[in-house]
Amino acid sequence: MIGDLVKANRSCRRFHEDHPVDLKTLKELVDLARLSASGANLQPLKYILACEPRMNSEIFSCLGWAAYLKEWPGPEPGERPAAYIVIIGDITISKEFGVDHGIAGQSILLGAREKGLAGCMIGSINRKHLREILNIKPQFKILLVLAVGKPKEEIKIEDVGPDGSIRYWRDSEGVHHVPKRPLQDIIVATHTA
Amino acid sequence: MIGDLVKANRSCRRFHEDHPVDLKTLKELVDLARLSASGANLQPLKYILACEPRMNSEIFSCLGWAAYLKEWPGPEPGERPAAYIVIIGDITISKEFGVDHGIAGQSILLGAREKGLAGCMIGSINRKHLREILNIKPQFKILLVLAVGKPKEEIKIEDVGPDGSIRYWRDSEGVHHVPKRPLQDIIVATHTA
Repeated sequence: MIGDLVKANRSCRRFHEDHPVDLKTLKELVDLARLSASGANLQPLKYILACEPRMNSEIFSCLGWAAYLKEWPGPEPGERPAAYIVIIGDITISKEFGVDHGIAGQSILLGAREKGLAGCMIGSINRKHLREILNIKPQFKILLVLAVGKPKEEIKIEDVGPDGSIRYWRDSEGVHHVPKRPLQDIIVATHTA
Repeated sequence: MIGDLVKANRSCRRFHEDHPVDLKTLKELVDLARLSASGANLQPLKYILACEPRMNSEIFSCLGWAAYLKEWPGPEPGERPAAYIVIIGDITISKEFGVDHGIAGQSILLGAREKGLAGCMIGSINRKHLREILNIKPQFKILLVLAVGKPKEEIKIEDVGPDGSIRYWRDSEGVHHVPKRPLQDIIVATHTA
């Protein structure tokens, strides 16, 4: 059931780094993105895959983690992603990428979740550095980095409280809490017979 | 299996218009979007739902359909969507919406597909007209319109041919063909142990 999968598919930032994610798995995930919708079917997205410790470490050094957790600089060694999918846009195909990378990212992470993995779409990227590390040509725009691995954190969805804050937070036992706006707050009008 | 659902989830533009899609169903679909990832968890997306013939007809008049099918102005009466989900961004929450509406749209259309429905994310919108019709306040930016209904077309995924064209096309029997780039063309580099 897609509802269960969507609910289970929480943005995850701590992983069992020693649990490998192989290239075959990453390709299966990209295939889900490949078969998803693309604006005007242009399909301008391309992918760089990494599941090798040294390169993972280089990619990790380009990423910003969990802006609301001010005292947490990101996952420690041993809890970092075992793989990355870097989504880049080919500007020789299209200058604009619309929401293609959102659609692709959602397909990929739902697929990862089904495989017992988890991940996170990361937009806070040192793009200049990542371009050097991965030798990304000027023909490509860096859009998103998806971290992937076996999850090592408990995440709870909650309703936004009376203070209205949407900031996720961690309790003393390390459980990650994510406040979501209730349905009645996000549906602003209905037109029915 | 998410793979089967992603594959079955084709952008659909002809529907059994007499097959109703009720408000409860639309709310269930929006709930999938609600529980999906949002940049910095800001959740700036809001939704307007319509499943009423007169309002549907008004919304329909604001939409551009299938740019590559030059001789097809869009679905005829009787084959139009039975419902719409209009995704708007609340600029009092965030000025930027990133790819949140792509993530939301993918969750919604996967959910629709599971329910035996289908849909299409439409970005070609007469926004000024739609704003008037739906009385959308300046606080909201119009992002996407999702058409939803019971599908009435056959759609085939194919590999992009030797000419490299990604334009979808319809054959003489009305089957809609969608060329997709093969996996080896979209993965530009891999880094493995």
